[in-house]
Amino acid sequence: MEPLIRSLPDKIYPDNTALLVIDMERDFVDAGAVQETPGGRDLVPAINRLIAWARPLSIPVIFTHEMHRPDQSDYGIELEFDPVHCLEGTPGCELTDGLDVQPHDYRILNKRRYDCFLGTDLDLLLRSLRIENLVCCGVTAHVCVMSTVFTARNLDYRVIVPRDAIAGVTPDHYAAALLCMSDVFAYISTVDQVCAIGVTASSKF
Amino acid sequence: MEPLIRSLPDKIYPDNTALLVIDMERDFVDAGAVQETPGGRDLVPAINRLIAWARPLSIPVIFTHEMHRPDQSDYGIELEFDPVHCLEGTPGCELTDGLDVQPHDYRILNKRRYDCFLGTDLDLLLRSLRIENLVCCGVTAHVCVMSTVFTARNLDYRVIVPRDAIAGVTPDHYAAALLCMSDVFAYISTVDQVCAIGVTASSKF
Amino acid sequence: MEPLIRSLPDKIYPDNTALLVIDMERDFVDAGAVQETPGGRDLVPAINRLIAWARPLSIPVIFTHEMHRPDQSDYGIELEFDPVHCLEGTPGCELTDGLDVQPHDYRILNKRRYDCFLGTDLDLLLRSLRIENLVCCGVTAHVCVMSTVFTARNLDYRVIVPRDAIAGVTPDHYAAALLCMSDVFAYISTVDQVCAIGVTASSKF
Amino acid sequence: MEPLIRSLPDKIYPDNTALLVIDMERDFVDAGAVQETPGGRDLVPAINRLIAWARPLSIPVIFTHEMHRPDQSDYGIELEFDPVHCLEGTPGCELTDGLDVQPHDYRILNKRRYDCFLGTDLDLLLRSLRIENLVCCGVTAHVCVMSTVFTARNLDYRVIVPRDAIAGVTPDHYAAALLCMSDVFAYISTVDQVCAIGVTASSKF
Repeated sequence: MEPLIRSLPDKIYPDNTALLVIDMERDFVDAGAVQETPGGRDLVPAINRLIAWARPLSIPVIFTHEMHRPDQSDYGIELEFDPVHCLEGTPGCELTDGLDVQPHDYRILNKRRYDCFLGTDLDLLLRSLRIENLVCCGVTAHVCVMSTVFTARNLDYRVIVPRDAIAGVTPDHYAAALLCMSDVFAYISTVDQVCAIGVTASSKF
Repeated sequence: MEPLIRSLPDKIYPDNTALLVIDMERDFVDAGAVQETPGGRDLVPAINRLIAWARPLSIPVIFTHEMHRPDQSDYGIELEFDPVHCLEGTPGCELTDGLDVQPHDYRILNKRRYDCFLGTDLDLLLRSLRIENLVCCGVTAHVCVMSTVFTARNLDYRVIVPRDAIAGVTPDHYAAALLCMSDVFAYISTVDQVCAIGVTASSKF
Repeated sequence: MEPLIRSLPDKIYPDNTALLVIDMERDFVDAGAVQETPGGRDLVPAINRLIAWARPLSIPVIFTHEMHRPDQSDYGIELEFDPVHCLEGTPGCELTDGLDVQPHDYRILNKRRYDCFLGTDLDLLLRSLRIENLVCCGVTAHVCVMSTVFTARNLDYRVIVPRDAIAGVTPDHYAAALLCMSDVFAYISTVDQVCAIGVTASSKF
Repeated sequence: MEPLIRSLPDKIYPDNTALLVIDMERDFVDAGAVQETPGGRDLVPAINRLIAWARPLSIPVIFTHEMHRPDQSDYGIELEFDPVHCLEGTPGCELTDGLDVQPHDYRILNKRRYDCFLGTDLDLLLRSLRIENLVCCGVTAHVCVMSTVFTARNLDYRVIVPRDAIAGVTPDHYAAALLCMSDVFAYISTVDQVCAIGVTASSKF
């Protein structure tokens, strides 16, 4: 079954929207990395297009970094399911090459779980910035992306997922995640559609 | 693709496990209800088997109730995605007929979002009871069940999902949710397998 | 030392403000109750004046109810510090007599801890209502009131505490709570001052 | 009124206890710093005694760091109450001189609010380490210390506050915070008493 596609609502404006780039770190996307996501590296141009859309509109760009302490003390039960990854102080925590990162972009560091909100300052940052809509991209579709999308929606952030800017561990997981998110959690969209947002006026006045 | 099936870990004992019955309310499962889930009513015997397993082992049984205020003030952005449902004071908030509910079972009331943890006392209750594992059943597979399973796992609760005790809005959504949960979020299992847990000794001594 | 008194900021308007009446329940304020707060009953007229101010301005009025399950399972470690109180199904959970409660007022039920935000839907409700400022009153000054004020402020709600609408277990505890809240957590004010808010225009346009 | 002093309960063992050193950063304790706490620097020997107690018992030592983004975007409404402080990339975020910090100690970084739990991974870390008791020290008594103590207690961590290892902005604020915490939030103690914990056997077996 194809994911439900709806037109974007008219409540998405540059001044109440942020771009969230999820876990585009070496351990998740680089060739041969411990948890390499197929197609992860190929997302870089698509994500850079989203960033290029965000810059002139002053839309905040936020990069998340899953990170774990070297003594593995903060994994909880995660090592029952995953190999060791993203240890602090290793290159695996760094963003992959080629992303258009600038010094004033935001980082959500020390993310310990799949969900970018849990145990991080993401919600505080979004509240402070008065953000109401989140464009979510990155990896991995059915894990960190979907877990974050679910919590975002539960917290009343309107979520847009450009389907050509996320990658899954298999085509089936990718399709399953899109289907599950498309119903009530997110507006499934494309990079092209997102890049058309913002020609109109501001939401706030 | 079939969901990943792994054998249950040896850390699941009656004294650190709870049974969570998610949103088996009239508005989600009764015939003709505003958000009737196909196959929802048919879960009652399977869920009752899980409850019958839990009772003699003193495993807590917890029923969640999505509920919304009559003035619709607490929906946030949800009405962009769903019709009005589960209004307080209407039968839609009640558990469907036939479930083996007892007065000493726990209720999580006033659940306002898909995720049973968000804005409820579920985590406080589980902490107080020193629960480490959650058997999750109910509706709807890719919405309230999966959203709750994701947060449970992010909070380090080990989750078991008996696949014959959850229902989806379509077979594809059901399959997609199972696939997405099976990887790193939950142990996909069956009612039969769950009911075999607990013949062995306690975890705590 | 007297609490710091500052003039109220100009960001407090009827359409971004709510009135939070904290735990005015029989077990905390009635004569002879298990945790009777001295002066608690005497707050009723002051709180009713705040409610009378809120009504014509359409300011939401929210009553919180600390409640605990009859089997005492949700107290966590609280019974190391407090006697059993506010059991569900007993009159101790009800609001004390004489408060001007109306059916459309909001209730935050199933509050299990001192902090009105923890494990409740208060934050979700305030987000849905787009509230930015909270007028807090009720009992007990240094416990449920201050704990709630601290979290409200940490979540970026601007807090106003009318000092003649809260009560403490002793005069010293009352004074200590006011001093601690006055610095960076809340604007300490009076019922008279709060009731003067709102003659001016709305914040939102 | 003096704070309530109770004897420490018998549930505090080296293997379920952590030492939390709150915000001993240059901007809060160094001479002439923007928010210098009187007596803050003088805490260093007392805190080092607590650390020396923790080391041989393998009690985790956790240092928190309030930090704010250089563009001040994450302050929320805090600058209505405080001057700019603890900007990332400035020495104000570093721990003050003389503390016995070791590489394997834990850091809670990117703390944006007074409460060390809000928007940080502190609760996840404590859950992973199976901590049940927290010894809290540092600055400032009625702000970051008390706000953290309140949330810790609300989350069912048993809190011990050695009164000679925290500092307040004035003697009155220090006394008020001790009084408010002593009732139901924390066991008020001394460095000497805390250092006597742990000669007995483990809690877990």
